[in-house]
Amino acid sequence: MSKLSTTPPKGSRDFLPEELRRREYVTAAIRQVYEAYGFEPLQTPTFERLETLLGKYGDEGDQLLFKVLLRGQPLVDGIRRASEHLREPSAVVHGRSGETAPAAELMLSDLGLRYDLTVPLARVYAGYRGKLPAVFKCFQMQPVWRADAPGRGRFREFYQCDVDVVGSASRLAEAEVVAAASECLAKLGFRSFGLRLNHRGLLKAIVERAGIPQNNETDAIVAIDKLDKLGTQGVDRELAAKGIDREARAQLLGLVADHPGLDIVQKAVAGSDLGAEAVDDIRSVLELSQVTPAAEHLVFDVGLARGLDYYTGCIFEVAVPGLESSLGGGGRYDDLIGMFLGKPVPACGFSLGLERILVVMDECGLFPSWLRRLDAVVAAAQVEDLREALRVSQVIRAAGFRAELRPKAEKPGKLRKYADEAGVPTAVWLERDAEHGVSMWCKSDGSIRHGLGLDNVLKVLRQELDKC
Amino acid sequence: MSKLSTTPPKGSRDFLPEELRRREYVTAAIRQVYEAYGFEPLQTPTFERLETLLGKYGDEGDQLLFKVLLRGQPLVDGIRRASEHLREPSAVVHGRSGETAPAAELMLSDLGLRYDLTVPLARVYAGYRGKLPAVFKCFQMQPVWRADAPGRGRFREFYQCDVDVVGSASRLAEAEVVAAASECLAKLGFRSFGLRLNHRGLLKAIVERAGIPQNNETDAIVAIDKLDKLGTQGVDRELAAKGIDREARAQLLGLVADHPGLDIVQKAVAGSDLGAEAVDDIRSVLELSQVTPAAEHLVFDVGLARGLDYYTGCIFEVAVPGLESSLGGGGRYDDLIGMFLGKPVPACGFSLGLERILVVMDECGLFPSWLRRLDAVVAAAQVEDLREALRVSQVIRAAGFRAELRPKAEKPGKLRKYADEAGVPTAVWLERDAEHGVSMWCKSDGSIRHGLGLDNVLKVLRQELDKC
Repeated sequence: MSKLSTTPPKGSRDFLPEELRRREYVTAAIRQVYEAYGFEPLQTPTFERLETLLGKYGDEGDQLLFKVLLRGQPLVDGIRRASEHLREPSAVVHGRSGETAPAAELMLSDLGLRYDLTVPLARVYAGYRGKLPAVFKCFQMQPVWRADAPGRGRFREFYQCDVDVVGSASRLAEAEVVAAASECLAKLGFRSFGLRLNHRGLLKAIVERAGIPQNNETDAIVAIDKLDKLGTQGVDRELAAKGIDREARAQLLGLVADHPGLDIVQKAVAGSDLGAEAVDDIRSVLELSQVTPAAEHLVFDVGLARGLDYYTGCIFEVAVPGLESSLGGGGRYDDLIGMFLGKPVPACGFSLGLERILVVMDECGLFPSWLRRLDAVVAAAQVEDLREALRVSQVIRAAGFRAELRPKAEKPGKLRKYADEAGVPTAVWLERDAEHGVSMWCKSDGSIRHGLGLDNVLKVLRQELDKC
Repeated sequence: MSKLSTTPPKGSRDFLPEELRRREYVTAAIRQVYEAYGFEPLQTPTFERLETLLGKYGDEGDQLLFKVLLRGQPLVDGIRRASEHLREPSAVVHGRSGETAPAAELMLSDLGLRYDLTVPLARVYAGYRGKLPAVFKCFQMQPVWRADAPGRGRFREFYQCDVDVVGSASRLAEAEVVAAASECLAKLGFRSFGLRLNHRGLLKAIVERAGIPQNNETDAIVAIDKLDKLGTQGVDRELAAKGIDREARAQLLGLVADHPGLDIVQKAVAGSDLGAEAVDDIRSVLELSQVTPAAEHLVFDVGLARGLDYYTGCIFEVAVPGLESSLGGGGRYDDLIGMFLGKPVPACGFSLGLERILVVMDECGLFPSWLRRLDAVVAAAQVEDLREALRVSQVIRAAGFRAELRPKAEKPGKLRKYADEAGVPTAVWLERDAEHGVSMWCKSDGSIRHGLGLDNVLKVLRQELDKC
């Protein structure tokens, strides 16, 4: 037997029980909230056809797809074709991570690992039109894979958590995804978070009003998104580098830099249909949200832009004081879900940053103490009583508790030490001296009781768990 | 926008909400039982290093691995080497699914998708010795991938559900995995299942006693496994084809064909240390199981062999009357988990056939009726009341119910029809005529109430859900 590496592959993680229980606590809480709001669970396969994925995430996305090798004869043919292709001088591209051969990759692969949750949702929405409701409210919590350079907090396999209302242009969709996301965060113990709200249409109207040329619109929106990070001067330099003239820059920064209120912005874009419609959307979402858990968190912020190109209406983002990166965000994206249908489908979603939420909850001590693995450990002091110890364990389990039975006869002192160190609130054992019957130790006060009947064991167990 | 295929890739499945709720009902029930027994959850990455996977599942397993294409420069080099390699006449192997090039595959790939749950468990157990308890009781419910030809009920991506006690040679391990698996099946509604129990050591002793040569031992054990399917004559023919002589065949079939009891088999292998030890193991597991939910199901069956080569002690398998394939099985396998440690580690496990269980539960109607997606649908009859309808929804949600708010104003009749067809037990709406206040329809008796306060809405909701 040779010694092989026992670490997980680069950028991936093993989730040992303690960490996994925390992850499952978070996903269960989110799931419960989303289901209360009438969102339905959805799961798609780990791999998709390459043709489904390619071209959906830009050139960089195509590069970062994990591709699955062809099998059998197609692979043999593929290798031959790929090697011929590589002999053409244009076939090899020099990129950030060395030479690559994009066209050759496609000769060797037919499937790619899921890169996000939106493209599979779009495929599903188009593929099951008759089976799904016209307005499909769903949530997905699944891993995605990106062949990126792994780093601190950046993984090649990580979980995304998306909630979407597909097929509805109603502003209730915005209000409900924002309400549900707020409720998730509150349920997980986050208190003082903000929910920034803005609108792509409003940003476009502002950019237009500032006199920035149409072909620089995206540059300007991307730059606005960096206001908090780079400051006014930094953004000004970035806009200048894109060739936007001084006056337009000053106009734009004058409109957004001080985070003016909605009334002021509304006046600034007066006369623009796009701007008026956007302001109307924002007011509606703010008003609807007054009756939801988002009320105390939602704030209009003209400085929010969200980097992703595909938003078409309202956009939102979670802001936690003192935390640079966001715990989630989303918005309306009416042009994406229809990609497999060949016609636009209105959609609005919110993505919670599951991995980031887990890190922050750990740092802030937001995991409850009852996330323990066991309520009791059980042992027999002598091997003859193992079956009786198993019977006692079964009674405890049947009452709804979690009990571990020690696999060998174990001295009570050793058992108590094990329970204490493992953070188990109680230990139950059968004494060597049969007349003592069932004995029980409680971590909370270190007390030991002897000669307990099983009814009393369950009673004490309930009392001890109430204390935790 | 071109129309792309919207079906999931061959051999994989989309899980739409209704089916997913059923799957999650089953996995939640299993998880709850396993946790009560002190088993801990474990998750490993979707891909492993190829070197971790190769050689662990035999030649066929190596062929059926989904391999992940190298990225960047290593891929370019790999294609060049693979194509040179293919020019050697011996490089291409003619197999079942056409030509394959096993060595060339390795030049193009570094990772493979998880093929089962046992090899990753062995890696984890070796890799985290200090962090995991010496006796590690864990369960895993994760998908695995096999590049097999898909067929009815056979998928390329499917879930396995394993529970294992690693690091203990105690017979309590057998008793507990069998007890927990029994409890899972009972909890899911299975009533009249059997749990067949046998022992690899006993089979070896029987084969030896029958006078079958050592080098035919595996052939004989594999043949015994087919007794139920092929009958005595069929197995006899199979043994003859392996060159086993008539007398040894008659001896063997005489020992196993009539499914004799343990006392008879014990006498037949009298004098064999291996046989005596195995009988002792079996008696212990039977005796321990008397105090567990396995008691009424567990039966010794000398005709059980389990195809997999790696079992070393007790073996067990679920038998459901009228069902040809099994819903699960397992046993002791002391030589496998140590593969990454370079020394043997005792282990005992049980694998529930999750996909099969789901199919049978569907056929037998074992899914509970309360697996519905919603408790209430809510709507406003006129658009001005949408915010008030949202407020009503929030009150219902905050009380722990699942409520869907219709995204547009909707007439009460249309809303009731929607609820009725979607199987939602109640519908709640705001009348066009404000004085009517909140109205509510109940599916159970078709009744409609008007002018309800929200307290009463919640009260009626509770009553209606009790009826479901």
